[in-house]
Amino acid sequence: MPQGQPLTVPDDGLTTRQRRNRPLLMVHTGDGKGKSTAAFGLSIRAWNQGWNIGVFQFVKSAKWRIGEQTVLERLGRLHEETGEGGPVEWHKMGAGWSWTKKQGDAEDHARAAAEGWQEIKRRLAAETHDLYVLDEFTYPIAWGWVDPEDVVTTLRDRPGKQHVVITGRRAAPELIEVADLVTEMGKVKHPMDAGQKGQRGIEW
Amino acid sequence: MPQGQPLTVPDDGLTTRQRRNRPLLMVHTGDGKGKSTAAFGLSIRAWNQGWNIGVFQFVKSAKWRIGEQTVLERLGRLHEETGEGGPVEWHKMGAGWSWTKKQGDAEDHARAAAEGWQEIKRRLAAETHDLYVLDEFTYPIAWGWVDPEDVVTTLRDRPGKQHVVITGRRAAPELIEVADLVTEMGKVKHPMDAGQKGQRGIEW
Repeated sequence: MPQGQPLTVPDDGLTTRQRRNRPLLMVHTGDGKGKSTAAFGLSIRAWNQGWNIGVFQFVKSAKWRIGEQTVLERLGRLHEETGEGGPVEWHKMGAGWSWTKKQGDAEDHARAAAEGWQEIKRRLAAETHDLYVLDEFTYPIAWGWVDPEDVVTTLRDRPGKQHVVITGRRAAPELIEVADLVTEMGKVKHPMDAGQKGQRGIEW
Repeated sequence: MPQGQPLTVPDDGLTTRQRRNRPLLMVHTGDGKGKSTAAFGLSIRAWNQGWNIGVFQFVKSAKWRIGEQTVLERLGRLHEETGEGGPVEWHKMGAGWSWTKKQGDAEDHARAAAEGWQEIKRRLAAETHDLYVLDEFTYPIAWGWVDPEDVVTTLRDRPGKQHVVITGRRAAPELIEVADLVTEMGKVKHPMDAGQKGQRGIEW
């Protein structure tokens, strides 16, 4: 919603409409809760616009199915059945959790992440999706599993009108630099600090 | 998902399961993007668990219908049709946008907000919903339209297992104090700073 006027009007030769509709690279980072949740919230907004959505979960185990996956895939089927909204694809690439990385598995994780990124590059080149959610993609970058320069160049030079949102802690400075929108989710207070573990419906 | 061990185990006489399933009061605040988006992302997660969801939009105009409303209400109808997920109610209480408050309208806004809060109090007492989204509710508190002490006491003493998420900038200190989970969405970078206005599918 048009929540006000921009602070500056750049001399970029674009009309307001052209500038408004430029595709965005968004980053949700920081130690607080809500990075992925906001990305999935954005996905339902995008679905409602009829956009083609591709979700790529890095790191998280293929054994784990979060509620958002069920709902977004359900919305994707609704699109197939009734034409409402847009199509949805959900891919999980990691072979294990980031916090239980076992010695010996690291190589497979790295290879899986690199393969995931290659697939995303192919899709960006083919303009497959309108919105890409690269969930927890900051970690493969931080761990050197994918090349930050390759990521930045690919995203910066992506063709057409493809929006991308990347989530995860410790976003690389070069990613922040090239992004259009960066939100830092800061932890002010978390139930885990008071001895409360995550719960169904809130955390997954 | 169980992302680790709590830092402390409190001496509160609760089992881990009891403590895990305590209802949460969550606050998404700060100047960055993602506060409401994460609350609606949380709502689809809750829907998937079959929870009864009540969304209460303060401030925002009844004329404006955001994509999340369409999708969540569609999910609510899906629940009625197929039994999937949970029921959804969506209420918009404000009579105008916060950034276009007109002289003379202020009193009506204040009354509408106060009435909204009274309705929410009734529902909390009746344990109507499993998840309450009080979107942009920090503003009526900040503007003195509802009494912060009444809000804090009511939320702290709410019966049963009712989760509440409150969004908006400048959350009152007493609200932060009583909350279980507080995330500060900080603006690192926003397209508006580069002269780009909000766009369909991203902002609404």
